Amino acid sequence: MQHKLRKTPEQVVAIAKEMVAYARSLGCPDVEFSPEDAGRSNREFLYHILEEVIKAGATTLNIPDTVGYTLPYEFGKLIADIKANTPGIENAIISTHCQNDLGLATANTLAGAHAGARQLEVTINGIGERAGNASLEEVVMAIKCRRELLGGLYTGINTQHITMSSKMVQEHSGLHVQPHKAIVGANAFAHESGIHQDGMLKYKGTYEIISPDDIGLTRANEFGIVLGKLSGRHAVRSKLVELGYEITDKEFEDFFKRYKEVAEKKKRVTDEDIEALLSDEIFQPKVFWSLADVQATCGTLGLSTATVKLIGPDGEEKIACAVGTGPVDAAYKAVDDIIQIPTVLREYSMTSVTEGIDAIATTRVVVTGDVSDSKHALTGHSFSRAFSGSGAALDIVVSSVRAYLSALNKMSSFVGAIKASSEVSESQRVQTTE
Amino acid sequence: MQHKLRKTPEQVVAIAKEMVAYARSLGCPDVEFSPEDAGRSNREFLYHILEEVIKAGATTLNIPDTVGYTLPYEFGKLIADIKANTPGIENAIISTHCQNDLGLATANTLAGAHAGARQLEVTINGIGERAGNASLEEVVMAIKCRRELLGGLYTGINTQHITMSSKMVQEHSGLHVQPHKAIVGANAFAHESGIHQDGMLKYKGTYEIISPDDIGLTRANEFGIVLGKLSGRHAVRSKLVELGYEITDKEFEDFFKRYKEVAEKKKRVTDEDIEALLSDEIFQPKVFWSLADVQATCGTLGLSTATVKLIGPDGEEKIACAVGTGPVDAAYKAVDDIIQIPTVLREYSMTSVTEGIDAIATTRVVVTGDVSDSKHALTGHSFSRAFSGSGAALDIVVSSVRAYLSALNKMSSFVGAIKASSEVSESQRVQTTE
Repeated sequence: MQHKLRKTPEQVVAIAKEMVAYARSLGCPDVEFSPEDAGRSNREFLYHILEEVIKAGATTLNIPDTVGYTLPYEFGKLIADIKANTPGIENAIISTHCQNDLGLATANTLAGAHAGARQLEVTINGIGERAGNASLEEVVMAIKCRRELLGGLYTGINTQHITMSSKMVQEHSGLHVQPHKAIVGANAFAHESGIHQDGMLKYKGTYEIISPDDIGLTRANEFGIVLGKLSGRHAVRSKLVELGYEITDKEFEDFFKRYKEVAEKKKRVTDEDIEALLSDEIFQPKVFWSLADVQATCGTLGLSTATVKLIGPDGEEKIACAVGTGPVDAAYKAVDDIIQIPTVLREYSMTSVTEGIDAIATTRVVVTGDVSDSKHALTGHSFSRAFSGSGAALDIVVSSVRAYLSALNKMSSFVGAIKASSEVSESQRVQTTE
Repeated sequence: MQHKLRKTPEQVVAIAKEMVAYARSLGCPDVEFSPEDAGRSNREFLYHILEEVIKAGATTLNIPDTVGYTLPYEFGKLIADIKANTPGIENAIISTHCQNDLGLATANTLAGAHAGARQLEVTINGIGERAGNASLEEVVMAIKCRRELLGGLYTGINTQHITMSSKMVQEHSGLHVQPHKAIVGANAFAHESGIHQDGMLKYKGTYEIISPDDIGLTRANEFGIVLGKLSGRHAVRSKLVELGYEITDKEFEDFFKRYKEVAEKKKRVTDEDIEALLSDEIFQPKVFWSLADVQATCGTLGLSTATVKLIGPDGEEKIACAVGTGPVDAAYKAVDDIIQIPTVLREYSMTSVTEGIDAIATTRVVVTGDVSDSKHALTGHSFSRAFSGSGAALDIVVSSVRAYLSALNKMSSFVGAIKASSEVSESQRVQTTE
């Protein structure tokens, strides 16, 4: 407190009460109060400030383990102690907010729930600051699997949406989960060792505590429909519905065109191919620049060269060529020559989402730019806003350029929005962005 | 038991005793006995079989949570109960082996240690079957950070080797950790939100419970030496020592040649660049085929084509060209044309390990082949042995071909070894492999 806020305990309590009362006075029915780093706070002071904010109208008390420092039994005891010692606690809901710095966020959250917390703050795939937060899928499935040991708790969540939600969050955040991530990792349901395979073949219950169906995990070969280059609109559309995607007719036509191009080149189009294509086609930002053509040469023998043709916001075609250390570097430099926005590439990664190298390659990039500097509302520190983009294609250079354009389009959109909002007083025009 | 082993409890105890006694009779001083899936076993039977194997000479009792099903307080109680109820337990060490299916492996392992286990089975980065095992770095750092709460436990591990070990395991296994992996993830020490950055700037202890130095995490800009194209052997060698690599003079010369090529093309060579180059140069299998040249053209305008020149085991150069759906597909087909080993590509991924697209791209592939079918020693089920390879280069196509060749060389080596071992009775010649 003295380091960060530079306030005395009495001042902190007074400010907390005032802010909670102010939020209630604005008509908010549920006001959540969060004493940061409760796991390391003085216990008596904690009961005291919680009592005061409840009196001031707080309805949810969020108890964070801000640095992911507590052990499960310790965090469980913290929640139990708060429940037992805070006057007026029966008028509020206790909530957990566990960081994962020591890999204990899921265990701490469950311990908190067991001890009486009735709101659990979790994130899909466990993403978040530093090592992330408690992971929704782990907490939900643990409660589902071990309900009797957790005093009959339940969540009301439809677990069949877990796999799809996890994929969407990976796609949009660019934060991929590791293959051995619990519940949603690529290997979470793969039995590789001979001794386990033997057990599985004899009786599934030997090793599988969660059925893949429970979390909506379906695999390409479990479906009857096999899509290929002869498949028509109806079959492809049925497959999309089966996979859980609802898209508009316009989106479907754009998708179907790309689908046909892929199907021409591949014998069999898998579910994973379709998901890669869909996310490239559907989940894209407003287009300022789109890719017409790209052509690259590279190798050990000479300098990599790329030629790029883009279609600009006004429909005009622009062409540029550039030399780089590799074909992607060359292509990105050619794009930069055309678009002329100062950009720094922060991250670049690529995965072939399906088996075989004739699969669709999905590329993800994160860029920042000089133009995207923002000031933090509270602290006033300036930070560089990052924009992610993804692209999919059979050709890795094409896929890389699509990803880069997708990120640049988001950045352009943001820059446009900043300009628009600074003009708002004159024209009252607001653009929605990313 | 009745599903998997098809034995009565009495038969199981008899076999267990016999096997433990047999192992001791061979002169093993430490014999570990593991009752699979102890977390879900009948408790009385568990005490009984453990008592019997201790009598038969078992010195370590490994208590696995085979399906990652238990909650921390439950697993802690299991260990405490075993310690309290197994006659003769004072003559053995209790060990934990926790799977991570519900994301609780680290918490369960700590609960086990707290309850009396004195051997903890963990893996670097938490890799393992399905969702993996308890992660060494999380367990070790939790014990280090919370020693007083865990009854004074300590591990004796030099934590400064954690970061390097984690990188090595990622490199060799191809199992990358997610950015938000606790302790060793790329973001584990990144403070992004403004409110946290504010706290950090005022006082580091506010959010950092582990110092990056504690786990040997050093960043490029913390070193005095900046390497570039003018750096000589001495500076580069000093940097390698600083990074913790000890390599032979021959390896250094090969490395230095590659280093110079990179430094010619990049302004500044970062620590991450050096690590990527080192792992490509040093940690490679026996070479059957090496890359002389590759050249590729690709893009949206036409079919991707690649020409590859390889140097074979006998020093002979072979050239092939092929057309593919992208430049990597084309190059891999050209390699296949030359090498002629039936191969299936299982996984392909690429990361640019440093900022900017003019960074070194590291590619990882996993391949299996018809020739690599093995039979499991216990179950007799046949499985396809997988070989991973990695490659690094500024050009993603070159990097991809290097990775593919690395995997194919491992496979060739393995096939060579199989042939050699089947000829062993005649020639008594054994080849060491991968």
